[in-house]
Amino acid sequence: MNQDRWVGIDIGGTSVKAGALGADGSTIEEANFDPEFARGPSHALDAIAREARRLGAQETLGVGVPGLLRRQDGYVLSSPNIKGFKDLPLRDELARRLGIAPSKVIVENDANAAALGEQWLGAGRGAGDLLMVTLGTGIGGGLILDGKLYAGAGLGGEVGHVVVDPLGPACGCGSRGCLETLASATAARRRSLAASLPTEKPGDLKLLCDRARSGHGPEKQLLFEIGRDLGRGLGPVICLLDVNLFVFGGGFSAALDTLEGGIRVGADERSYGGRGAHLQLVRATLGPAAGWIGAARPTVPGQRA
Amino acid sequence: MNQDRWVGIDIGGTSVKAGALGADGSTIEEANFDPEFARGPSHALDAIAREARRLGAQETLGVGVPGLLRRQDGYVLSSPNIKGFKDLPLRDELARRLGIAPSKVIVENDANAAALGEQWLGAGRGAGDLLMVTLGTGIGGGLILDGKLYAGAGLGGEVGHVVVDPLGPACGCGSRGCLETLASATAARRRSLAASLPTEKPGDLKLLCDRARSGHGPEKQLLFEIGRDLGRGLGPVICLLDVNLFVFGGGFSAALDTLEGGIRVGADERSYGGRGAHLQLVRATLGPAAGWIGAARPTVPGQRA
Repeated sequence: MNQDRWVGIDIGGTSVKAGALGADGSTIEEANFDPEFARGPSHALDAIAREARRLGAQETLGVGVPGLLRRQDGYVLSSPNIKGFKDLPLRDELARRLGIAPSKVIVENDANAAALGEQWLGAGRGAGDLLMVTLGTGIGGGLILDGKLYAGAGLGGEVGHVVVDPLGPACGCGSRGCLETLASATAARRRSLAASLPTEKPGDLKLLCDRARSGHGPEKQLLFEIGRDLGRGLGPVICLLDVNLFVFGGGFSAALDTLEGGIRVGADERSYGGRGAHLQLVRATLGPAAGWIGAARPTVPGQRA
Repeated sequence: MNQDRWVGIDIGGTSVKAGALGADGSTIEEANFDPEFARGPSHALDAIAREARRLGAQETLGVGVPGLLRRQDGYVLSSPNIKGFKDLPLRDELARRLGIAPSKVIVENDANAAALGEQWLGAGRGAGDLLMVTLGTGIGGGLILDGKLYAGAGLGGEVGHVVVDPLGPACGCGSRGCLETLASATAARRRSLAASLPTEKPGDLKLLCDRARSGHGPEKQLLFEIGRDLGRGLGPVICLLDVNLFVFGGGFSAALDTLEGGIRVGADERSYGGRGAHLQLVRATLGPAAGWIGAARPTVPGQRA
């Protein structure tokens, strides 16, 4: 193989992040573009394939995509936030456009891709077991066990739908009180609005955290409560998997320092042996690049699962 | 190696089960004995080593034991139901008594051993991913992922301490409403006594199930409720691991047919995508032998992890 760069694509609801890596994981080039999903999946796939080719994808391509997919053949069953991404043979469509063998295009759930990226080159470097928790509109999860991505039949790692409060808010998934209804960025905004915090600008999460950091009581307390719910959602991860390293990504992970105390208390409430104090709670370090880097990872020699 | 039989020992709170296997997993001999724990750990270890030697342990031995242990060197940190099994170098003590190299004595948690046994020769034969759930005094769990035991740093699989009802009964572990406070044999007996069911003999679980099977309303309803709590405890296993096969062992697993409807409803309440209907819920088939068979497994050529 003459290939000297490996390309990853991270498809998001509004834009696509992409890049090319050297075999050692160094970033050669990064890109961020709008494939105009509104014009339909065929148009968007053309744009994505064009960009992948420009970045240097010759023989392989790694792709991350949100939603439900059949991993073995990279088939998107549904991706609620991307217009037209439903019953879509994403792997085969991209392979055909690029003239690459379908088996050389590897499609992964976006949260799983981020976990693969962070464990390779980010905050989880060298760790055997970790859960990557993405705090955004919802809460995504990606599970690394014994150094490898664990996804079960495909839906593993979904910590966002662990039920924390059976009497809590209704979740889009049909359950009540799922972790993401209590501790996602969306949920935090809802809770801060309901509490009229911070007083000057209710619902402003950045200001909320700043106030908490400078010691303001009610803001500090609210973030503690949100953190506690987050920790309660991690409890079953600890009971079932004895995982101690949690890597937090997504926009709301900027609040981790204000959530941490609550997370430890909530985790203790829902596990045993006083393990809350010993958890490693760290922020992701690759930022928005984790997804495309992790998507590329399985195509890089020596990094294949 | 001239060894033609592999010996497993399953240490329990009142008796010890043991046996010898051929390389193909066939049972050569089984035993059940009382090592007289009351006379102290040294006496009990002598009795266990004597029986292991009698069964043919020459170069290797597999041991299952309840409680908290450090798996890498088979050190028992604590085993609340066995007198004197605390801060005990179980592996080394047995190896010394048998004249076997310590590295050839493999000690595993008893619930994990049962999972290894059932996945090898029992109800989970050939399955890649499963959770073995032992319904006894408490609720034990053993997790098989990608065909191998997964225990994390050692405490993985503890489904009995997943919190189902944050306002529920206090658990010995310090949390409230752990699965085992709601759906173990002990909990089922407590709930049937509280409900004065079955009327003739409140607290008799066998009769309770018989009544439910013959269509008696209140008994059927109570077992549905217990099953629902059990399913709620499995919800996070489904969200996090996408596991679909659950193998139930322990005395109270005889009630599985009466619990099954509730389990599916409870699992749906605490997961998403309507997966409750598709779960495989099966009874263990090796019975009380699962533990010693699974304990022996890692010592058998071709079965080493």
